[in-house]
Amino acid sequence: MPERTDDHLEEKRVSTEEVFKGNFLTVRRDAVKLPDGSATSREFIVHPGAVVIVPLIYTPDGVKLVMERQYRYPVGLTIVEFPAGKLDPGERPFDCARRELKEETGYSALEWARAGLIHPVISYSTEFIDIWFARGLSLGERQLDSGEFLDVFLSTPDELASLCRAGQITDAKTLSCMFWLSNVLSNKWALDWRSTESCDLQEPVPS
Amino acid sequence: MPERTDDHLEEKRVSTEEVFKGNFLTVRRDAVKLPDGSATSREFIVHPGAVVIVPLIYTPDGVKLVMERQYRYPVGLTIVEFPAGKLDPGERPFDCARRELKEETGYSALEWARAGLIHPVISYSTEFIDIWFARGLSLGERQLDSGEFLDVFLSTPDELASLCRAGQITDAKTLSCMFWLSNVLSNKWALDWRSTESCDLQEPVPS
Repeated sequence: MPERTDDHLEEKRVSTEEVFKGNFLTVRRDAVKLPDGSATSREFIVHPGAVVIVPLIYTPDGVKLVMERQYRYPVGLTIVEFPAGKLDPGERPFDCARRELKEETGYSALEWARAGLIHPVISYSTEFIDIWFARGLSLGERQLDSGEFLDVFLSTPDELASLCRAGQITDAKTLSCMFWLSNVLSNKWALDWRSTESCDLQEPVPS
Repeated sequence: MPERTDDHLEEKRVSTEEVFKGNFLTVRRDAVKLPDGSATSREFIVHPGAVVIVPLIYTPDGVKLVMERQYRYPVGLTIVEFPAGKLDPGERPFDCARRELKEETGYSALEWARAGLIHPVISYSTEFIDIWFARGLSLGERQLDSGEFLDVFLSTPDELASLCRAGQITDAKTLSCMFWLSNVLSNKWALDWRSTESCDLQEPVPS
């Protein structure tokens, strides 16, 4: 990657305005100055951020992943995806990961490792998704939100890779996590595993 | 993946309404019926679809990829990404891939292979991104749109993987393409390469 300053690429905010506030989505429109000094506007969704969890279960037959199938209205498809969810106001990504895994799948984890960050839609949303791996899972009761409907199932890395190749896994956060997973399972990338208690003490509170 | 019908997951449209029409973004709000018969609403961005291109250059030192660095205003970062762009009205994904690669990077390709599909944001956008690999590249003049500013550079698969691991590549379509690329380069997944002329004749026109 070329090492240089980004002045020839950066766009500067001139003003900002909320132009749509729905039940779920908020849109802002900013007047911006382009690198050549000319003016334009940028419209984008304001999003609180989210987490996705890669939950590993070690079995005598190898690693399994805790996956979900959920109908996703905007694309009109039942989507296979890793467990995920939006941050509550002021919530730390780690707390959100622990909460969403438990609520949606019923699983609690003994150990967690923060892997990376995804920007799902850099052209029109502020959304980021924090990637967390979880292991040492034990199954309890799940607690779905009212109006939430999803199936939970276990799958192997090979089965998931086959679904990706066949175009049956198309969710960008799940494909991104599959790249992380394949590098972790092949020991190319090491994770920094920590106990749930340690994460609870050490993860920074959002400013 | 469990084999079953999805009646217990599917949401049915009751009515639909355009609730925001900006310069760039369109938001619809649909009244929907949940699987248990209760009512809610879904808000989402209506998007024409897009393509992303994985452009391969074979050199004596191994494969290189044609990459871009572009400032992405909603996330406030200069992002490393594969070349990509939105479909024009009525445009076929293949034509869009060929056009965007040429406009943004200056490269034309002799051969193309359609790899798969990404849904970047299944919870609030209809957007899909068609993944195309390109090879047999020759460099001409690029033709950036007015107001478009981006750097083009070449990188190796290992360099890109390191950037992914270090959290310096966070774009979901690029991470998703890295999963495809790693499987293609390790010969786990074969691509169906075809000449540009063959793609031009065979790719379906959108309905």
